[in-house]
Amino acid sequence: MPGVDGHPPRPRRGRRPAGADTRGTIVDAARDVFAAQGYDATSLRAVARHAHVDPALVHHYFGGKSALFAEVMRLPLDPRATVDQVLDGPPEGVGRRLAQGFFEAWDEPGRTPQMIAVLRAAASHDAAAAMLRDFLAAEVFGRVAAHYSDPGDATLPTRVGLAAAQMVGVAMLRYVLGHQPLVEAPVADLVDRLAPVLQGYLVDGVAPGPRAGV
Amino acid sequence: MPGVDGHPPRPRRGRRPAGADTRGTIVDAARDVFAAQGYDATSLRAVARHAHVDPALVHHYFGGKSALFAEVMRLPLDPRATVDQVLDGPPEGVGRRLAQGFFEAWDEPGRTPQMIAVLRAAASHDAAAAMLRDFLAAEVFGRVAAHYSDPGDATLPTRVGLAAAQMVGVAMLRYVLGHQPLVEAPVADLVDRLAPVLQGYLVDGVAPGPRAGV
Repeated sequence: MPGVDGHPPRPRRGRRPAGADTRGTIVDAARDVFAAQGYDATSLRAVARHAHVDPALVHHYFGGKSALFAEVMRLPLDPRATVDQVLDGPPEGVGRRLAQGFFEAWDEPGRTPQMIAVLRAAASHDAAAAMLRDFLAAEVFGRVAAHYSDPGDATLPTRVGLAAAQMVGVAMLRYVLGHQPLVEAPVADLVDRLAPVLQGYLVDGVAPGPRAGV
Repeated sequence: MPGVDGHPPRPRRGRRPAGADTRGTIVDAARDVFAAQGYDATSLRAVARHAHVDPALVHHYFGGKSALFAEVMRLPLDPRATVDQVLDGPPEGVGRRLAQGFFEAWDEPGRTPQMIAVLRAAASHDAAAAMLRDFLAAEVFGRVAAHYSDPGDATLPTRVGLAAAQMVGVAMLRYVLGHQPLVEAPVADLVDRLAPVLQGYLVDGVAPGPRAGV
């Protein structure tokens, strides 16, 4: 395994039995490896090696890479379940399911401050931003894109990016900056207005309008 | 004038002649007053009093409150000129002019790092975030809303907020987080896709689609 730059190696004590702090040891090791190699290149096997535990223990505690990353980044949720819901239904409801899943994730009691902390960290720190971006690209946008992709459609990544931008911006204005009209708007109204926009980006591909009135 | 809380009063030296550092003195005073009173409640007259200069000097150096605020916040531009362009033309071109003005503002050589710094500051610091939010609400969204507002349309603030969210999100993903598809997309393509979305939010009011496929 390539060196985990900038971090002293953990003391070698051989493989340890599952104990009270094994989970924490794995999270600490994962933080090092994600930071050094990025989200995409990190394997659970490499994390296990760095933590000096059996790879089966990593699977046992975390199930998969996205859940381990969510723990390392202190994300208040692993978005895989939300994405599962978005993909589970007819294509014409994608925009609405995505908007609903977004507000369910953000508005769950007690979760908003954690979500804000994540967004602030992403806006402030390059390393955190890069990791979060790669994570979301793989686990959220990548999955949605792969699900609805026409292999011949080169516009899909741009359209998925603009849909993501709409949602990141709503998070910034409603939760971080506290823009009153978006704070006070009922979720149902926001979902009604966001659904056709997201649907247009993600599924319909909206033909660009005429270059009118410029 | 109400006290500028938490800042010691500047040494009283009487009104000073315009000198090499008068401009800087005004900016320093404005920083105090904006921080204590917020964007909306700050007057150029109050800034002049706090700086111990004649109000005419503040107008002479800065022209108006938005330009003074842009200087205090180290904004790389005063958005009034961009908003003037957006409002100067037929209603059916608003979305396109807004998208074009946005990318012209962000992509001007040398300006992007400053714009990123502003967005990061807004995401990180509550005081900066509140001031920037109030400033944008008054000078950008407020002006656009007032221009196209039907007094009976209670949905306009939400629609303006969602249009702003789309643009804040594009700034986050393209410039701060460096999401590759949005970094690599030609501006003309992004404008083609954003224009109808912004137009729908700001002017057409897009009737919410049917609650299909949920």
